[in-house]
Amino acid sequence: MQSHHIVRAYDDELKYLTRKIAAMGGHAERLVDQSVAALVNSDTSLARKVIEDDAILDQAQREIDDKSILIIARRQPVAADLREIIGAIRIAADLERVGDLAKNVAKRVVAVAEGRQPVSLFRGLEALAELALTQLKEVLDVYASRSVERIEFVRARDNQIDAMYTSLFRELLTYMMEDPRNITPCTHLLFCAKNIERIGDHATNIAETIFYVVTGDQMPADRPKEDKSHHVTLPVEHK
Amino acid sequence: MQSHHIVRAYDDELKYLTRKIAAMGGHAERLVDQSVAALVNSDTSLARKVIEDDAILDQAQREIDDKSILIIARRQPVAADLREIIGAIRIAADLERVGDLAKNVAKRVVAVAEGRQPVSLFRGLEALAELALTQLKEVLDVYASRSVERIEFVRARDNQIDAMYTSLFRELLTYMMEDPRNITPCTHLLFCAKNIERIGDHATNIAETIFYVVTGDQMPADRPKEDKSHHVTLPVEHK
Repeated sequence: MQSHHIVRAYDDELKYLTRKIAAMGGHAERLVDQSVAALVNSDTSLARKVIEDDAILDQAQREIDDKSILIIARRQPVAADLREIIGAIRIAADLERVGDLAKNVAKRVVAVAEGRQPVSLFRGLEALAELALTQLKEVLDVYASRSVERIEFVRARDNQIDAMYTSLFRELLTYMMEDPRNITPCTHLLFCAKNIERIGDHATNIAETIFYVVTGDQMPADRPKEDKSHHVTLPVEHK
Repeated sequence: MQSHHIVRAYDDELKYLTRKIAAMGGHAERLVDQSVAALVNSDTSLARKVIEDDAILDQAQREIDDKSILIIARRQPVAADLREIIGAIRIAADLERVGDLAKNVAKRVVAVAEGRQPVSLFRGLEALAELALTQLKEVLDVYASRSVERIEFVRARDNQIDAMYTSLFRELLTYMMEDPRNITPCTHLLFCAKNIERIGDHATNIAETIFYVVTGDQMPADRPKEDKSHHVTLPVEHK
């Protein structure tokens, strides 16, 4: 009976971690969604809410870290259980960063709102955010279901996100060259786009961690990189 | 005798982690240094070397992760030893990101070299990089010496880095407005500056991890944030 109780308590501890990660994932999705909505609608009060709510993710990460270390010390797990706990620490770190990136988008709402951007720019940014959010959602679904056979989609979509980001980068540079009044707001939009692209990277990191947790193997290191924005240069037309 | 051998082997394993982190730190410093030198001197072959050498850090992180998990499973450490190992995993992740950021600077060397920037811009970037590198070096010194009482300097300097980055951000926007030919190269420089500022953040993360490893406590969460670049907007002068 005694050992049965211990196993049960241990199992509950592991489930606590999984639930806490799922809750963090839900918060992270909401912050990303709201930060982009705040940007597109110049909604400074929603932006403020995102900036405040990021603290929820910081706090959750600390709790997961503390709890994980406590479980390792108390239960001395090996193999799959140990990977589960190390995985929780890693995924919590990625989700905490996703929150930071959403906060960073929210912080730029005021600077962007001071200019008047073409609607197409916001459409591009919304499409990018939608792709990144779908990525994050699916990765969290894979975490919940442990169906790692679905994980390959993640890298394919990460490449799509990078390609879309590069095209948005080019478009933003074009607007900046057309009119110097666009420079400040478009620079902030460039950073917003980069932040959203990074959210996709963190979703990919999480996918790799899940693969490791479930299989005990690392996914191969080199993946094709489609973010070509660092090569983008535009010719200047003199009027 | 037997248990003496085991303790000795365990001790060697922990020392292996510490040495490996120190080596990663050295590589990371070199990559940051070389990426900025490549940028300032338009040295594309040095840039290529940085991009290639980043793989060393990726590989080192995997080794540290694998070894850490092996040690936890085999030795079932608690308290300070467990914190030491979890700390190694975290610091390796930060150093791997520093390598990515240096690689990202190196990737922009070609795009920046196509324009002709005022010397003062490069001076500003070099000064920022120097501060970030000093930060990284001192943090790695604290890791080697475990003298956490020196750790407060880290946050103070992180604020300095953020303030310098914000002023560089403003300067870069000004150049972009002065001449549309500056827009493309200065945008890439903006991202380089942001990458260097992020290196400072990772150094600060490492400091926080060391504090946790040595004391068992977390440093308080909220620190003042001096990166005000997201508020920067510039009035446009019409000629």
